[in-house]
Amino acid sequence: MDYFEDIEVGRKARFGRYEVTREEVVEFAKKYDPQAFHLNDDAAAKTHFGRLSASGWHTCAMTMSMLVRNMEENRQAGLGSPGIDELRWIKPVYPGDTLRVESTVLEKRRSESRPEMGIFKSRLTVFNQNDEPVMSMVSNGLIQVRDPDAAIET
Amino acid sequence: MDYFEDIEVGRKARFGRYEVTREEVVEFAKKYDPQAFHLNDDAAAKTHFGRLSASGWHTCAMTMSMLVRNMEENRQAGLGSPGIDELRWIKPVYPGDTLRVESTVLEKRRSESRPEMGIFKSRLTVFNQNDEPVMSMVSNGLIQVRDPDAAIET
Repeated sequence: MDYFEDIEVGRKARFGRYEVTREEVVEFAKKYDPQAFHLNDDAAAKTHFGRLSASGWHTCAMTMSMLVRNMEENRQAGLGSPGIDELRWIKPVYPGDTLRVESTVLEKRRSESRPEMGIFKSRLTVFNQNDEPVMSMVSNGLIQVRDPDAAIET
Repeated sequence: MDYFEDIEVGRKARFGRYEVTREEVVEFAKKYDPQAFHLNDDAAAKTHFGRLSASGWHTCAMTMSMLVRNMEENRQAGLGSPGIDELRWIKPVYPGDTLRVESTVLEKRRSESRPEMGIFKSRLTVFNQNDEPVMSMVSNGLIQVRDPDAAIET
């Protein structure tokens, strides 16, 4: 397993491949974000989206599925997340797009209230098949500490 | 329709009701966030979640569905969002919880590059049935301007 101690600040990674289908875009939008520009091309053509585009929350969900697969491949002892510092939907995501992720670890620290956990901050950027960034975020990840009895560096 | 001109800074609102079911929590997690603590109680019991909890992204999606319904009821001319400034998953969301939203408009401004659009910033807090905040965010919303030819105040 990969623990807090194994996280290297500055480490970059590229991973994931997610093919965005019209069926899934419409299914997600109907359930969670039924704004017209996420449901049909005609309504979207009247807006700055131009054509049917994925809900930004759907892009977050698709990105999470790539992240979880990557965590599994790295056998990372993740414990969820307290939140996201900055989430930007940079360009629309369209059916037919293929998404991928680039990440950089920005910083890490032990939790003082829960010494068995650490927190690390990463910048994540999601690109489409034209290498255009479509979404970015600074995410905070919780991860198990291998040796909870070790002193906390300050 | 409610346009940019109708947005009142400082306005508070309470809206939404979303019953969180185990079936939906597991369905979302299987598709987008298959970490063990979102899939079964036994795995969750070994973590700080205690029992099966919803993916944070699922909570975002459920919140969006409450927001869209509220926008429809207010006939708000929304045009999507450029992003979220701060997203915090404060407490786990469990099957059986019932969620609702409170919002406050923090500020608004016309877009200088796209005079037909305005941007407004809101703090959104999601509560469970015990009135405990489970999630908060500062969201940025794009909205149509009723009179795009009006001068932009600076």
